[in-house]
Amino acid sequence: MYFFVNDYNSICYPQILDALKEAIDEKNPGYGTDPHSENARKLIKKALGDENVDIYLLPGGTGANIIGAAAGMRQQDSILSANTGHIEGHEAGSIEATGLKIELIEAENGKLTKDSIKKSYQTFTTEYMTVPKKVYISNTTELGTLYKKKELEEIYAYCRANDLYLFIDGARMAAALASEKCDYDLKDLTKLCDIFYLGGTKAGLLFGEALVVVNNELKKDMNNLIKQKGTMLAKGFISGIMWETVFKDQDFYLKGSKKAYQMAKILADCLDKKGYKLAYPFESNQIFVILDDNQLEKWQKIAQFEITGEKEDKKIIRLVTTFRTKEEEIKGFLEEI
Amino acid sequence: MYFFVNDYNSICYPQILDALKEAIDEKNPGYGTDPHSENARKLIKKALGDENVDIYLLPGGTGANIIGAAAGMRQQDSILSANTGHIEGHEAGSIEATGLKIELIEAENGKLTKDSIKKSYQTFTTEYMTVPKKVYISNTTELGTLYKKKELEEIYAYCRANDLYLFIDGARMAAALASEKCDYDLKDLTKLCDIFYLGGTKAGLLFGEALVVVNNELKKDMNNLIKQKGTMLAKGFISGIMWETVFKDQDFYLKGSKKAYQMAKILADCLDKKGYKLAYPFESNQIFVILDDNQLEKWQKIAQFEITGEKEDKKIIRLVTTFRTKEEEIKGFLEEI
Amino acid sequence: MYFFVNDYNSICYPQILDALKEAIDEKNPGYGTDPHSENARKLIKKALGDENVDIYLLPGGTGANIIGAAAGMRQQDSILSANTGHIEGHEAGSIEATGLKIELIEAENGKLTKDSIKKSYQTFTTEYMTVPKKVYISNTTELGTLYKKKELEEIYAYCRANDLYLFIDGARMAAALASEKCDYDLKDLTKLCDIFYLGGTKAGLLFGEALVVVNNELKKDMNNLIKQKGTMLAKGFISGIMWETVFKDQDFYLKGSKKAYQMAKILADCLDKKGYKLAYPFESNQIFVILDDNQLEKWQKIAQFEITGEKEDKKIIRLVTTFRTKEEEIKGFLEEI
Amino acid sequence: MYFFVNDYNSICYPQILDALKEAIDEKNPGYGTDPHSENARKLIKKALGDENVDIYLLPGGTGANIIGAAAGMRQQDSILSANTGHIEGHEAGSIEATGLKIELIEAENGKLTKDSIKKSYQTFTTEYMTVPKKVYISNTTELGTLYKKKELEEIYAYCRANDLYLFIDGARMAAALASEKCDYDLKDLTKLCDIFYLGGTKAGLLFGEALVVVNNELKKDMNNLIKQKGTMLAKGFISGIMWETVFKDQDFYLKGSKKAYQMAKILADCLDKKGYKLAYPFESNQIFVILDDNQLEKWQKIAQFEITGEKEDKKIIRLVTTFRTKEEEIKGFLEEI
Repeated sequence: MYFFVNDYNSICYPQILDALKEAIDEKNPGYGTDPHSENARKLIKKALGDENVDIYLLPGGTGANIIGAAAGMRQQDSILSANTGHIEGHEAGSIEATGLKIELIEAENGKLTKDSIKKSYQTFTTEYMTVPKKVYISNTTELGTLYKKKELEEIYAYCRANDLYLFIDGARMAAALASEKCDYDLKDLTKLCDIFYLGGTKAGLLFGEALVVVNNELKKDMNNLIKQKGTMLAKGFISGIMWETVFKDQDFYLKGSKKAYQMAKILADCLDKKGYKLAYPFESNQIFVILDDNQLEKWQKIAQFEITGEKEDKKIIRLVTTFRTKEEEIKGFLEEI
Repeated sequence: MYFFVNDYNSICYPQILDALKEAIDEKNPGYGTDPHSENARKLIKKALGDENVDIYLLPGGTGANIIGAAAGMRQQDSILSANTGHIEGHEAGSIEATGLKIELIEAENGKLTKDSIKKSYQTFTTEYMTVPKKVYISNTTELGTLYKKKELEEIYAYCRANDLYLFIDGARMAAALASEKCDYDLKDLTKLCDIFYLGGTKAGLLFGEALVVVNNELKKDMNNLIKQKGTMLAKGFISGIMWETVFKDQDFYLKGSKKAYQMAKILADCLDKKGYKLAYPFESNQIFVILDDNQLEKWQKIAQFEITGEKEDKKIIRLVTTFRTKEEEIKGFLEEI
Repeated sequence: MYFFVNDYNSICYPQILDALKEAIDEKNPGYGTDPHSENARKLIKKALGDENVDIYLLPGGTGANIIGAAAGMRQQDSILSANTGHIEGHEAGSIEATGLKIELIEAENGKLTKDSIKKSYQTFTTEYMTVPKKVYISNTTELGTLYKKKELEEIYAYCRANDLYLFIDGARMAAALASEKCDYDLKDLTKLCDIFYLGGTKAGLLFGEALVVVNNELKKDMNNLIKQKGTMLAKGFISGIMWETVFKDQDFYLKGSKKAYQMAKILADCLDKKGYKLAYPFESNQIFVILDDNQLEKWQKIAQFEITGEKEDKKIIRLVTTFRTKEEEIKGFLEEI
Repeated sequence: MYFFVNDYNSICYPQILDALKEAIDEKNPGYGTDPHSENARKLIKKALGDENVDIYLLPGGTGANIIGAAAGMRQQDSILSANTGHIEGHEAGSIEATGLKIELIEAENGKLTKDSIKKSYQTFTTEYMTVPKKVYISNTTELGTLYKKKELEEIYAYCRANDLYLFIDGARMAAALASEKCDYDLKDLTKLCDIFYLGGTKAGLLFGEALVVVNNELKKDMNNLIKQKGTMLAKGFISGIMWETVFKDQDFYLKGSKKAYQMAKILADCLDKKGYKLAYPFESNQIFVILDDNQLEKWQKIAQFEITGEKEDKKIIRLVTTFRTKEEEIKGFLEEI
């Protein structure tokens, strides 16, 4: 049985466990005030090429989204999001539970554009409506697509001109940066938004996301917010050790994601040759294939994956590759279908 | 420099890392639906001697308190807590951030009693007030004290008679059960409250708390609540592996806590002999000592610890032992003061 | 200038002011515990033909919606609503501000159906999603349309079978009951949902809505919730006096709304004869007309009204009649356009 | 039976009803955009001697407190309040329901001081705690006491120096300004805090409080917040007409409250002569008397009032006078006790 269900199905890079083992006799202060966390933050800043950001090592994606969404918001403020946004349909109302309304924008291939944001934002003209104060996008998106540098620049310019914060959900930022279709790198990110995170859970760590706060307005009292939302790890030094490990050597953070991309590419190319249609453009380690009932039945006998939607009487299914996907798995699967 | 700052200063039991290493090639489904989590829940139920509970493996204490507090609550409901309760002063407003008010009860040595709960509860008679619906206690308490079985039975009986849920914050439940002064064990817990958790962060795991839901009314749709609050780990199988490890052999869960208690006992006995006064009764691995300025200055030169309060011009300081505290550290410290 | 902007543009029935004047020397206890409120609740129960409901006199519509939405909800619960629902786009995020997510259902002519609810409800199958626990509909709807008895019965039967509460926003319930197209009356309402309100603000009172709680599960501790949300009037006796006035004689409550309907009917009939197209079926005192740019410009010179949307390059505008709209106004307007 | 229960037991000044009757044929736009509301805001600004404030006419006290508390707050922020503060114990958790924690300060006679605020504020030093961002005081207080000008100046200076907003709950501001012990007037208020309200419910209106926003940081998007919390009246023009009436002649707003104070003064003086002890200093229309059981029993036979607390085996009861209290009532009551 081939396994293409998700990108968080294996423990972690072995190096992570080695690093933890090495530190097993240490005594460290709590809540991220330890030397490992300090060093990890320093290494990440260096990799980002920006000393002026604040970095917080959070345990997981939903929590990182809650913090990113709640930061700097008043009660009448709201968040603009693609209707396919993770925070809208996949987090059990986590944002609304903090009192904030998500205002949805119809999105093509999971991506907002400067124009779609503008068109929506301009409708918020009365006191009966919320006050949009933040734009949420995810990169790569929930549909495996990727923002181009110019798209992000246009969106961010519009946000700054209209007093909107731009928050990028980076649960799959490593997948984005590892894609051959990506025209920017780690050093560009802090110029493209106000707050974002670098995913760890889906990039070889046991768990964790590194939240990067760029905009000074959002930095103040951030630890209090993180503690309040239950997203501050008592043993912060564990996060510190993990992030140190993947950023000690700058290329290591993206290594597994690049492998995952290469596997996905082989898969996408061959599916194309075999005449399968993708539901959305292939741009990263998530591939969405349109299958009729016969195809679906056959595939389900040999592999595990998620059915994510429907399109004209056919099903859309998702194949995800990871840093542990092996070329023989891809080839074996392609032969069997 | 001796280190008595807290009980979450070291990585974990080495066995935890070994178990993770062993599983490093596995592919597991997410969100706690994997065989390790399944097995861990089974082992914990067995240790508790109760098949009818639901168990959720959560990443940390604040999150576990948020879930325990929010479960089953309507918007007009409130939580009764000791004025020294962790949720009141040490979690940055995490409970209020979910919309719930904490109603405080003056507590002696950190403990509520049936009578103090009753006295408070009876004042909630008008629509201008919230509707107390849950009682929160912590065991061991924030002051190192321990509930006796009879005390818990009386409190729980009062709660049941008055339509109040009883929630026990068990971040230090292992410390409670490991104390020689404890007159109950794991098999008693599900008869003493509606919902509680077994701490892992402070009991040798990398992180994590095992939430145990006893009352059927609180079980429904619990996973949705856990997801909403950002307390569902994507790689739930990591939690599964850790809890399997400490509950494979039933005694292993408490092993480190028993060690910590023994170290604390030596410390408390010797401090007593040397004439030091404790601020609260010695009952577990947290010892609160009253120091004058000279003593404090001396102690701070040789050890790290927290100052937690004041009492008549003197300071109250806290010494915490852990599963890694060594007898020679205790002895060395006692000699130097 | 003719005025068709809304149905809350005039003070109140003169009888309301007379009744207040009559009571000006009284001293009454606060918060709805006075004899007027008691009597008003009794009269409303009698008009509804149901002694087993609880009634609360609230100051306004948004507040009534907040209470109706929040009642009986746990934190993981959500509310199913038409995408045109008042609580979604016209109350500045008031429901989300209480922590609850609104899950939207595409609606035709502003109305949900048993089938559209079912189709949506069945998609809520995972822990990543909220738990739908309540259905919100408004009657008449935001588009002036009206639920038929059979439609309400089908919806309510589905709700009961699926553990969903049905809440009817009745800000315009008087307009619904006053419509010639309505096939039910006041005495049917408590059999058709779990909780609803009778609008007063739009039915001749100074302000106020009478919330009717039918389902026993929602009755408990309701006053605490009402107080918490700022929707309990200190001088509740003023509400009491107003509702006494309009329910002393059972027909008086609907009198003004019937007048408004008759005026709307003349208007709709004549617009039809003149060849204008309506955006939604004419069923109550709100008429939505499709106008091209020339027509719009002409109309705006002689009347005040709201532009509410667009349809194929044309505008949709809304004309609202009230209990104070005079036949000569309607005729004059129709002549001038 | 004499009636000293509260200060919101009678309908309103007759002039209010007259003004409403006069406007009964008007058609006005909604939500406070009408000429009456516009004029009322202008008159209030004139009475305050400050053109630079924003004014919002809200329906009631709890709602005004919710808005005053929530304005300008981030999720990690909290509110410092006296432990006797109305928002703490008398509004059913309304502030916490918006997600904000109230941090309590022990208060003498219901009043905070610069020093008590400072002592509390200085303890908020860690990320485990909330971030105090606003100070809430009420004037007159819940215990009938009154802030002196110098006290307010000191508090406000401390707030400004420490990035804290000062919010004054003015449900009884008219009672404060009407007291002979008050050393400031309407024209001083906007120099003494960031946001406050002038009570109407307890000062002769049918209902309503006039929220005054002084600090520019709090002005933006206030209408959206007011709408969200259900505190925007659809028929805002009714509020407009009422506030116009009491501020047309600047002295009229305080007229009834001055009468109430005179009645209270006679009462307090005579109680003093008769040897009764007050629980708190007499400074306004609320008098708190300490009674033993015999006295209480006797008083309860001839008058209605609230029991508000206990003091050394005796009860504290509250007598409240209003603009409708007559001298013969006071005298009659004093003779009978």
